[in-house]
Amino acid sequence: MLYHVRMDVLIPTDMDTDKVNELKATEKALSQKLQEQGKWRHIWRIAGQYSNFSIFDVESNEELHDIMMSLPLYPYMKVEVTPLLRHPSSVRSDDS
Amino acid sequence: MLYHVRMDVLIPTDMDTDKVNELKATEKALSQKLQEQGKWRHIWRIAGQYSNFSIFDVESNEELHDIMMSLPLYPYMKVEVTPLLRHPSSVRSDDS
Amino acid sequence: MLYHVRMDVLIPTDMDTDKVNELKATEKALSQKLQEQGKWRHIWRIAGQYSNFSIFDVESNEELHDIMMSLPLYPYMKVEVTPLLRHPSSVRSDDS
Amino acid sequence: MLYHVRMDVLIPTDMDTDKVNELKATEKALSQKLQEQGKWRHIWRIAGQYSNFSIFDVESNEELHDIMMSLPLYPYMKVEVTPLLRHPSSVRSDDS
Amino acid sequence: MLYHVRMDVLIPTDMDTDKVNELKATEKALSQKLQEQGKWRHIWRIAGQYSNFSIFDVESNEELHDIMMSLPLYPYMKVEVTPLLRHPSSVRSDDS
Amino acid sequence: MLYHVRMDVLIPTDMDTDKVNELKATEKALSQKLQEQGKWRHIWRIAGQYSNFSIFDVESNEELHDIMMSLPLYPYMKVEVTPLLRHPSSVRSDDS
Amino acid sequence: MLYHVRMDVLIPTDMDTDKVNELKATEKALSQKLQEQGKWRHIWRIAGQYSNFSIFDVESNEELHDIMMSLPLYPYMKVEVTPLLRHPSSVRSDDS
Amino acid sequence: MLYHVRMDVLIPTDMDTDKVNELKATEKALSQKLQEQGKWRHIWRIAGQYSNFSIFDVESNEELHDIMMSLPLYPYMKVEVTPLLRHPSSVRSDDS
Amino acid sequence: MLYHVRMDVLIPTDMDTDKVNELKATEKALSQKLQEQGKWRHIWRIAGQYSNFSIFDVESNEELHDIMMSLPLYPYMKVEVTPLLRHPSSVRSDDS
Amino acid sequence: MLYHVRMDVLIPTDMDTDKVNELKATEKALSQKLQEQGKWRHIWRIAGQYSNFSIFDVESNEELHDIMMSLPLYPYMKVEVTPLLRHPSSVRSDDS
Repeated sequence: MLYHVRMDVLIPTDMDTDKVNELKATEKALSQKLQEQGKWRHIWRIAGQYSNFSIFDVESNEELHDIMMSLPLYPYMKVEVTPLLRHPSSVRSDDS
Repeated sequence: MLYHVRMDVLIPTDMDTDKVNELKATEKALSQKLQEQGKWRHIWRIAGQYSNFSIFDVESNEELHDIMMSLPLYPYMKVEVTPLLRHPSSVRSDDS
Repeated sequence: MLYHVRMDVLIPTDMDTDKVNELKATEKALSQKLQEQGKWRHIWRIAGQYSNFSIFDVESNEELHDIMMSLPLYPYMKVEVTPLLRHPSSVRSDDS
Repeated sequence: MLYHVRMDVLIPTDMDTDKVNELKATEKALSQKLQEQGKWRHIWRIAGQYSNFSIFDVESNEELHDIMMSLPLYPYMKVEVTPLLRHPSSVRSDDS
Repeated sequence: MLYHVRMDVLIPTDMDTDKVNELKATEKALSQKLQEQGKWRHIWRIAGQYSNFSIFDVESNEELHDIMMSLPLYPYMKVEVTPLLRHPSSVRSDDS
Repeated sequence: MLYHVRMDVLIPTDMDTDKVNELKATEKALSQKLQEQGKWRHIWRIAGQYSNFSIFDVESNEELHDIMMSLPLYPYMKVEVTPLLRHPSSVRSDDS
Repeated sequence: MLYHVRMDVLIPTDMDTDKVNELKATEKALSQKLQEQGKWRHIWRIAGQYSNFSIFDVESNEELHDIMMSLPLYPYMKVEVTPLLRHPSSVRSDDS
Repeated sequence: MLYHVRMDVLIPTDMDTDKVNELKATEKALSQKLQEQGKWRHIWRIAGQYSNFSIFDVESNEELHDIMMSLPLYPYMKVEVTPLLRHPSSVRSDDS
Repeated sequence: MLYHVRMDVLIPTDMDTDKVNELKATEKALSQKLQEQGKWRHIWRIAGQYSNFSIFDVESNEELHDIMMSLPLYPYMKVEVTPLLRHPSSVRSDDS
Repeated sequence: MLYHVRMDVLIPTDMDTDKVNELKATEKALSQKLQEQGKWRHIWRIAGQYSNFSIFDVESNEELHDIMMSLPLYPYMKVEVTPLLRHPSSVRSDDS
């Protein structure tokens, strides 16, 4: 099942640089693992913003929630979730 | 170059049914042609809304604009465009 | 899977009374059928508004969308969908 | 009498972990006691958010207010209250 | 039980004058009957607006809703309801 | 002359408890003195919020402003002022 | 007593030209009479908008309301009223 | 040339009292000098707010900007600028 | 003196095509005359919208207002004006 | 390719003056280098604000993003990006 998520990351400007780097590295590793599993189908950077639009393909609202809560940067994010479905005009065979 | 577009379609409730159906059919045909050309990369329906999130992959701002203006339903749409780029955490080879 | 939906109904003040009554009767019948099937779990009126908060329990985003689109009053509604899940503090056995 | 309440919890990122855990545990215990008393009829997690939609069934505006003020996490919440009533299309015998 | 209601009345500029006058007269008569019954405790005009702030004292959310729906001008109103209670600093004996 | 004022009080969560209690006690004493003088005609708590709706009956915009500025909790308030007048449908003899 | 009023005039594009001109002429004549009486102290056009910022100096909220309601263009205006008072830094002798 | 400026002053509640008083005194002195020069034509307090509406009469956008930047309280202000012009209904000879 | 103007054009979908074309042609001719005079310094289309961002270089707020009011499409525009000035980091000799 | 960017700079009022000055000097130097390269085509100050409207002329969304991220003041900015294109009414030969 597909979900559209916008994440705006707001790291405090006074956070310790090492901690910021570690958070970002852990976030990236987890994001890539989830992409390889096919759960995090797409991630795009929004031009000029420290933000992304992502598409998730998961079993349920619960799984989406659990993934979001597991993200190391979640406490510094503003998150907006929109449930999606296949569009009747889509030509893709896999709804993605 | 990638763009994220949200389209909210607001067809007047008193429009002639035949005209509505014709507009929708022409819109669908054009959308599918553009998808097959690789310019309209993704289109998803937003659950509960007569709206979609789409990803376009075009040469320039100009080409995106020309495509939007060519859509038969454009006069009945509220449109929001966001320029995108490859995310540093993306594992895809084609940036899509 | 659970969804929270707010529906604000805005019937034009100049619509023919018979048509309004027929729309409302058909809407009510469909709503009650879906409630009896367990798909439309709750519906509450918002005090002072021609609006409701509803809880749906359906298989997927697709099923929610199809139900919304089948409502006779949908063309006159403003709809807001929020995906839900069981709360860790809930004492209910059925997540509802 | 029924009320719909949305609670968005915003715990400061620098709060002591022990204090956070204690607040959450006390909140959960109180929530469950109120659920068992039938006053806090429903609580659902909003997907991707540290927020909930809840339904309260209490005697009066005063009782709702007193319950909200007694919540250990109240000082960290943004709260939105909407008074509800039985919907004419509801098939439930208990208005809940 | 007390409720604060803001009503913004938006009568279409092309409505027939006789119908407008009749609606206003019926609205006024009903408002005054409800005031005399003690249910519509206060009504104030907002300076420069065709709007009012009102205080209702009724048995329940249901009674408030039924009153609002019975107002002849309701179809032309934007309504905002806020549940109230006695303030701990109030010196009034009757909570009004 | 009548004014409607909404006050949302936002005391910082880290303020010293003694200072908070002293501020609240002084605020309450002043509020009650002004109520007894007939200048602060009504004060109601908004359910679920640390906020109130109040009605003031004062000589002028200046007097309203001076009262607001004299409130001990003013530095922690978001304030919204709306000038009022007697409503033509009011049955009260004293415009209150 | 001073009030700041913003008026945004929204005349329907299909209104009869003669009616528009008559409304504007009557509005202007009344505005100038009120300016000469000292009640409508200032009126400024907002650059690029069919809108104005005005300052009124009247006896009460009631008088301000009656003036606004008497304006021929009132049914086509969006109006925002803000009560004012002499600023402690003002050097003017007449508070205007 | 005329400009309408709204200034909302937000001095942090923990600023040193002496510093606050000094800032306010310097601000007032500068404001009065500019009023005497005819550049700051009007300043009014907004009832119930630590805010003002002001009218400036300066040579250019540049001069307005330089004045705003020179205000001691500018770092603590939210500022909104609107360019104005003489209104065709104004009876004043000096456009002010 | 420089101004930034955003214009969103909203031509009713039921306007006669000939009238639309004539309005657009007259608008274009006037825009180009003003560009050649150096008063309308820049005009850019916003991608995906029937809107533009423009820069005007005129003598005063009055001249800007008169130009805006002279535009044939003005009655169908939502307009937002922002006064500008040379930026201290600009390397241009002509402030444009 | 052209982009319109609004930047609102919000430097914390308690930042060390030397650090502020250094940040501003580095920002200015980089801005001027980019202007001389033709990538940062225009920059205007917004009157009364510590903000600018800028026009960028770059190869792609990616290049725009990289420039924004390289700005020393970026961590203190609110940024809004709008993709632009040549307007059909423009008389300029270089689309700028």
